[in-house]
Amino acid sequence: MALLVEKNSAGREYKVKDMSQADFGRLEIELAEVEMPGLMASRTEPPVLIETLTALGAEVRWCSCNIFSTQDHAAAAIARDSAAVFAWKGETLQEYWWCTERALDWGPGGGPDLIVDDGGDATLLIHEGVKAEELYEKTGQVPDPSSTDNQEFQLVLTIIRDGLKSDPKRYHKMKDRLVGVSEETTTGVKRLYQMQATGTLLFPAINVNDSVTKSKFDNLYGCRHSLPDGLMRATDVMIAGKVSVVCGYGDVGKGCAAALKQAGSRVIVTEIDPICALQALMEGLQVLPLEDVVSEADIFVTTTGNKDIIMVDHMRKMKNNAIVCNIGHFDNEIDMHGLETYPGVKRITIKPQTDRWVFPETKTGIIVLAEGRLMNLGCATGHPSFVMSCSFTNQVIAQLELWNERKSGKYEKKVYVLPKHLDEKVAALHLGKLGAKLTKLSKDQADYISVPVEGPYKPAHYRY
Amino acid sequence: MALLVEKNSAGREYKVKDMSQADFGRLEIELAEVEMPGLMASRTEPPVLIETLTALGAEVRWCSCNIFSTQDHAAAAIARDSAAVFAWKGETLQEYWWCTERALDWGPGGGPDLIVDDGGDATLLIHEGVKAEELYEKTGQVPDPSSTDNQEFQLVLTIIRDGLKSDPKRYHKMKDRLVGVSEETTTGVKRLYQMQATGTLLFPAINVNDSVTKSKFDNLYGCRHSLPDGLMRATDVMIAGKVSVVCGYGDVGKGCAAALKQAGSRVIVTEIDPICALQALMEGLQVLPLEDVVSEADIFVTTTGNKDIIMVDHMRKMKNNAIVCNIGHFDNEIDMHGLETYPGVKRITIKPQTDRWVFPETKTGIIVLAEGRLMNLGCATGHPSFVMSCSFTNQVIAQLELWNERKSGKYEKKVYVLPKHLDEKVAALHLGKLGAKLTKLSKDQADYISVPVEGPYKPAHYRY
Amino acid sequence: MALLVEKNSAGREYKVKDMSQADFGRLEIELAEVEMPGLMASRTEPPVLIETLTALGAEVRWCSCNIFSTQDHAAAAIARDSAAVFAWKGETLQEYWWCTERALDWGPGGGPDLIVDDGGDATLLIHEGVKAEELYEKTGQVPDPSSTDNQEFQLVLTIIRDGLKSDPKRYHKMKDRLVGVSEETTTGVKRLYQMQATGTLLFPAINVNDSVTKSKFDNLYGCRHSLPDGLMRATDVMIAGKVSVVCGYGDVGKGCAAALKQAGSRVIVTEIDPICALQALMEGLQVLPLEDVVSEADIFVTTTGNKDIIMVDHMRKMKNNAIVCNIGHFDNEIDMHGLETYPGVKRITIKPQTDRWVFPETKTGIIVLAEGRLMNLGCATGHPSFVMSCSFTNQVIAQLELWNERKSGKYEKKVYVLPKHLDEKVAALHLGKLGAKLTKLSKDQADYISVPVEGPYKPAHYRY
Amino acid sequence: MALLVEKNSAGREYKVKDMSQADFGRLEIELAEVEMPGLMASRTEPPVLIETLTALGAEVRWCSCNIFSTQDHAAAAIARDSAAVFAWKGETLQEYWWCTERALDWGPGGGPDLIVDDGGDATLLIHEGVKAEELYEKTGQVPDPSSTDNQEFQLVLTIIRDGLKSDPKRYHKMKDRLVGVSEETTTGVKRLYQMQATGTLLFPAINVNDSVTKSKFDNLYGCRHSLPDGLMRATDVMIAGKVSVVCGYGDVGKGCAAALKQAGSRVIVTEIDPICALQALMEGLQVLPLEDVVSEADIFVTTTGNKDIIMVDHMRKMKNNAIVCNIGHFDNEIDMHGLETYPGVKRITIKPQTDRWVFPETKTGIIVLAEGRLMNLGCATGHPSFVMSCSFTNQVIAQLELWNERKSGKYEKKVYVLPKHLDEKVAALHLGKLGAKLTKLSKDQADYISVPVEGPYKPAHYRY
Repeated sequence: MALLVEKNSAGREYKVKDMSQADFGRLEIELAEVEMPGLMASRTEPPVLIETLTALGAEVRWCSCNIFSTQDHAAAAIARDSAAVFAWKGETLQEYWWCTERALDWGPGGGPDLIVDDGGDATLLIHEGVKAEELYEKTGQVPDPSSTDNQEFQLVLTIIRDGLKSDPKRYHKMKDRLVGVSEETTTGVKRLYQMQATGTLLFPAINVNDSVTKSKFDNLYGCRHSLPDGLMRATDVMIAGKVSVVCGYGDVGKGCAAALKQAGSRVIVTEIDPICALQALMEGLQVLPLEDVVSEADIFVTTTGNKDIIMVDHMRKMKNNAIVCNIGHFDNEIDMHGLETYPGVKRITIKPQTDRWVFPETKTGIIVLAEGRLMNLGCATGHPSFVMSCSFTNQVIAQLELWNERKSGKYEKKVYVLPKHLDEKVAALHLGKLGAKLTKLSKDQADYISVPVEGPYKPAHYRY
Repeated sequence: MALLVEKNSAGREYKVKDMSQADFGRLEIELAEVEMPGLMASRTEPPVLIETLTALGAEVRWCSCNIFSTQDHAAAAIARDSAAVFAWKGETLQEYWWCTERALDWGPGGGPDLIVDDGGDATLLIHEGVKAEELYEKTGQVPDPSSTDNQEFQLVLTIIRDGLKSDPKRYHKMKDRLVGVSEETTTGVKRLYQMQATGTLLFPAINVNDSVTKSKFDNLYGCRHSLPDGLMRATDVMIAGKVSVVCGYGDVGKGCAAALKQAGSRVIVTEIDPICALQALMEGLQVLPLEDVVSEADIFVTTTGNKDIIMVDHMRKMKNNAIVCNIGHFDNEIDMHGLETYPGVKRITIKPQTDRWVFPETKTGIIVLAEGRLMNLGCATGHPSFVMSCSFTNQVIAQLELWNERKSGKYEKKVYVLPKHLDEKVAALHLGKLGAKLTKLSKDQADYISVPVEGPYKPAHYRY
Repeated sequence: MALLVEKNSAGREYKVKDMSQADFGRLEIELAEVEMPGLMASRTEPPVLIETLTALGAEVRWCSCNIFSTQDHAAAAIARDSAAVFAWKGETLQEYWWCTERALDWGPGGGPDLIVDDGGDATLLIHEGVKAEELYEKTGQVPDPSSTDNQEFQLVLTIIRDGLKSDPKRYHKMKDRLVGVSEETTTGVKRLYQMQATGTLLFPAINVNDSVTKSKFDNLYGCRHSLPDGLMRATDVMIAGKVSVVCGYGDVGKGCAAALKQAGSRVIVTEIDPICALQALMEGLQVLPLEDVVSEADIFVTTTGNKDIIMVDHMRKMKNNAIVCNIGHFDNEIDMHGLETYPGVKRITIKPQTDRWVFPETKTGIIVLAEGRLMNLGCATGHPSFVMSCSFTNQVIAQLELWNERKSGKYEKKVYVLPKHLDEKVAALHLGKLGAKLTKLSKDQADYISVPVEGPYKPAHYRY
Repeated sequence: MALLVEKNSAGREYKVKDMSQADFGRLEIELAEVEMPGLMASRTEPPVLIETLTALGAEVRWCSCNIFSTQDHAAAAIARDSAAVFAWKGETLQEYWWCTERALDWGPGGGPDLIVDDGGDATLLIHEGVKAEELYEKTGQVPDPSSTDNQEFQLVLTIIRDGLKSDPKRYHKMKDRLVGVSEETTTGVKRLYQMQATGTLLFPAINVNDSVTKSKFDNLYGCRHSLPDGLMRATDVMIAGKVSVVCGYGDVGKGCAAALKQAGSRVIVTEIDPICALQALMEGLQVLPLEDVVSEADIFVTTTGNKDIIMVDHMRKMKNNAIVCNIGHFDNEIDMHGLETYPGVKRITIKPQTDRWVFPETKTGIIVLAEGRLMNLGCATGHPSFVMSCSFTNQVIAQLELWNERKSGKYEKKVYVLPKHLDEKVAALHLGKLGAKLTKLSKDQADYISVPVEGPYKPAHYRY
């Protein structure tokens, strides 16, 4: 795909897969709106994520956070109607970083006031850019992509190096303009806290990942929905009767294990943390190391957020047509490198995102989904709109908070979580759609348990 | 689509959507084989449904039983490699009956020895054909399509009328040659029993629909799998938190209600039968008439096998974007006619099989899946292979039984259920794949409960 | 306990544990009445099982069907207020048969018109009595208890032998008077069918065991409730996290496995029947022989209705404090004889019905509930009233049917199941209490599926 | 019951219900030991709660934390064998405080070194005692019970007043000796934090209530087990098919709702907190205010930790024999005062802890369990041993930590939570019993996610 920016009829820049799908995308967006009560309720107050920001006069530029996760028709609809979009399903890594750079490229002197980040890559690019510009100013030295083994980071350094030539102050101007970022992933938030710890964070950041209405919904309920969806779309396998191994029993693992158990699978959990292991046992799940069960299970799901969970040596021992997939986040949970380089291994693509890998010794094969990347994005359509409504409503509320307080000095160059009353507000915005009615606390009762009548109702450490 | 028979490189006839998908279809068939242990185990003994019959020297001609249920790539693979195929997804009714006629058309003097039927349409065509030929012979009168209001039956009569001209003994020759039929649907079986009752059944029939390994698996476990699959593929809706109404709590309804409940939906059941209603209550489900809940639910599923379940007057009162679908069998469970002819109603096709119908008074719309036909076939891929393996293994065993006994006189022109020990055999063929090991009865124990050591273990009326 | 018949203030005979508990019993009966909507609804039409029969002028004599199942306070209340009662918790086998004889003893020339049987022991006693009287009349020979090894049958023969001396026509007079019996257990029904097959059945019998509202409720829902109840009352063990083995996956096993799984246990099923095994797999349960899991499980439950399921050699290999119990029906599912006679075994009674048996080699012990008899009766209070309401309503309807048709000749000396419309009626009588409302079939719809508008709605072989 | 201290054969003081039950209690303690792997594992390291402390040379004095929660036979066994015990089931409030005082009464000059508290009443008594002694020393003024309306606090003041006369420095000597307290209830911990906030805390305190292995297990898993246990023992009601209302959806409510749903009940939740409400919806539960459902539900359970949840005006509108119970903690969740003083209301005690209250207008009654106090303690046996093992192991580890650090100055007069690695240790001690095996983190993986190989594995705010 030639990396050239195109322009829609209104002159707005974009690069999407197929603009002719814009009508289809628009219909699905309209469907989703009904499923996103929190976000729609926010529209009257805090405006909706992309379209409402646009409607309010904001200029939005959008790229994807994942090379497989874009729904092309939705991207086309937004590109045609509302925002500058640089995203398509199946980007190469180089295309991905080109898109990220485009999203930040508001022309000379321009730049975003706020970043809605999802994984922290936009934030990373700016921080690395500023670092490189400082070094360049001091020493004239430009970034050297060959200084790192990390293939992806080589691309980042290349982009920055090439940009330095045209504008050696580009990222400085960007960070000066930026009011702040709100970030919604574990990975992105972890990077932010590291930058805070080392004193290198360049602007205020709100961690919306740790809102209850984000973390539990995105991880637990979202994956409970989208794991079986991805499995069924990719393989049509009957889940009932199968033996499944869920690696990790955090929120994502809990959601996956619940979905598989409910669908009639026998579920085995692997865990390093004794507390999570005990929780698995209390739900009737077996807890064993992968080695003990690798040759008897039918479905393997990684959910750990760690690396090197299912190695090629595990995969060799699996049953014929065992399904191996990752919904954890990092694409190195499954040893794809080991698999790809295994001598004599044969890859048969059944359909996009569904590959059968046949080992030469046994002639048996395993099915790997989404090339080891997030299977719910690669094989299905990611989380359902209702879950995204919870996450995005957190984002919108965080963005508004940053903007409204941009001159008050309330937010320093630190990482903040959303206050609990806003977390409760996100939940409240989603109740009506589901027909729920809350009970009202009396003043007397509120005093009795020492909370305000209008909340927040729980201490910060409450686990839900 | 012009209705012309094509020929593959081996000269075998076919009519499929796109022959270039044959490789894709072949890969998915190979996947499915691993999931069909009963059918594969049958291969050494009784040969597999299509391909093994072919491999054994049988000549197979295949049409679909439903205008939406064909997977085009699978059809292409079979057409290229194994059998004469006349089927594609999205046939018109006329095309459907043309395909059925083609599947029975073995050229002059030819015809099938056995029929594997699924819905009874092939059997119906032959019976109606024979009836018409008799009348024609006696009176010279040909069938008059305008004699019936039923649009589909008009097509049947037209086909027979047109055939009479070229060969007035075609269906007589066919029925004379036929050893028997095995039928796997409730609808088809019902017709068979009606023909048996009126003495018009023309050849022996085995009812495999009422094998436990067919009825419970196809209905209960199959729908438990494919209902959420269809919902998710068609709408991406979050099932958790939604209110669902399942009309009917037979095996299909039980599977649907279980799937929805497990996915986190609150489920309300409608029932006419007090025993099934009490079963629903015992599972914590609410039992109410549709009228009482029509305006508060988000998802409506018909599973009754009856007609006129969800009428347009119900649909008018539903919430905006309520989802309405049928997984029961008959396409008149939902009042599609009433919907289509509702004054001022507007149909917006979001994607194939997913339509939003907007009522003029309220401007709100409902989402109807698969045009009111079976949503698991229309919006997803039907039952998973493992379930089909149970059903098809029953078919194969029935076909073998008919063939092996074709000269023994064991089977008269009546309807027979498969004997229980064969039903148990189908189950036994599926256990190993799931890692199960049976306990063996001792002679002493078998005597104690008065059953043979090798089974069958239950009386005929046992309910499982 | 001296076996003397006592008389209450109204002169009615009884023998119960403690008449002072009558008030407590009355309160619990009143509680139960609210939970027995079917039976209470029957009161206006067909009268309630004991008390309403009494109120209508019938004279009822009652004994227990199980040496452990009597609730002494309930027995006291009935004995004081309504019927002649001969029953207490913890009868010896001798006391049990004495009670059975008392219940049939209406004085010289008297006897029951109808029997409500539960296990078939009253029916057995009459049939054996008649047989012995015939032999005695012909040959003067009396039954010889030493002719059998079966300890319980020795008691039966003793009772009959002793009775022959005082009245050699006692059981003949009884059977002549008897209009019929209704029987509600699998065991009792099996005996009835055997007598029908050999032509020895002496009076009409209605099999209420195979009503759906009896068999599914008593077995599936009843045990799902009372298994965890019995486990918790007897041992207070945490079910969550434990490994349970359920021997048998019929209706009782299905109820037990569901209860244990839902409480957070990992459940393994043993089965001889491949269909039931496949059903277990479809619910995510593991299916293995007992031998494979005997040393890793914490809880063992027999539900088979067969003998020799858990042998002392199994028990020796179990973990310390493994719990072993039976809810199947026959008290020989667990090898109590092998356990009791194991050399050096030590029995420690923790509390009544809860024994720890310590093996001499390992010094580890297992916990056996209710001495291997039905643990839900021995350790808890049996099925809840709502379930019993379903069963008893079937009994009442059957008794009324027998009585109403006593002169019509409708019922011969055969075994009959209740017609389906009466089965549906039992269910219907229980819906209102649970807030359910049925949907009404239109005439048009009824015709379409070929059933009467008012039911029955399903064919006889329907499996529910 | 005359309040006189008795002495066992070893001269140890006690006051229990019935010392003859000691053998029964001992057997049940031995059973429980097998179910308390964490506590037994602690025995080699940190000694077991009562008996191991005793065995190690500690002198333990024990009272109950709740007037209904003592199991008399267990108390007898401990009193006979190991510790000074002052506790029986069914104490009056006066007896309760007398027992508390006795537990702290080590004779002149004596007193505890450490307190294992459960509800904070022992800690309260000492703090109030010290306050009163200070005032008395300054002003000669003694506490005036009539100065408060709170009946229970009147008893506390009376005890302190009476004690002042004999020893005006008693509580000062006690607090000087005390190394610290570990507290395991929400209520007790709340009081501790309030004392910390006002600077009045007299000694270090460890909050074990907020360990994950305490809070989730005691609240969520414990109540999931003991709610149905209490319901079944008290009423034998069939839970399946019933409509239940769970007031509050915190951890206790989540456990109760899960148990009721799994048992086949339809569950409605009341909530004030929108986040918890949304969690309930995601599990398929309905969320409505009590007013909307009060007349249609069969079972009502309060779990809020707040007061005035079910008022007498609600109870009047309930169905006949609706069951009302509390498992939340505070005994004022149900308006017992309003019920008791309702004009013309009639209380019928069915059995201890199970009362039917009949309203004069309707003559219908409701069933109240445990007089509105904790029904799992009053009607069943509280949490199962396995859950208590988790809680108590936290206590033991906290006590050891306090004792080991008594001279190090590590703990000031503040409230501390147990460090996460000890929380994980408690979990780890319970895995083996359930057959679980953990996965080991490699050094490389540990570095990758920035945790130590041996844990702790999660940040403090992790929600599990």
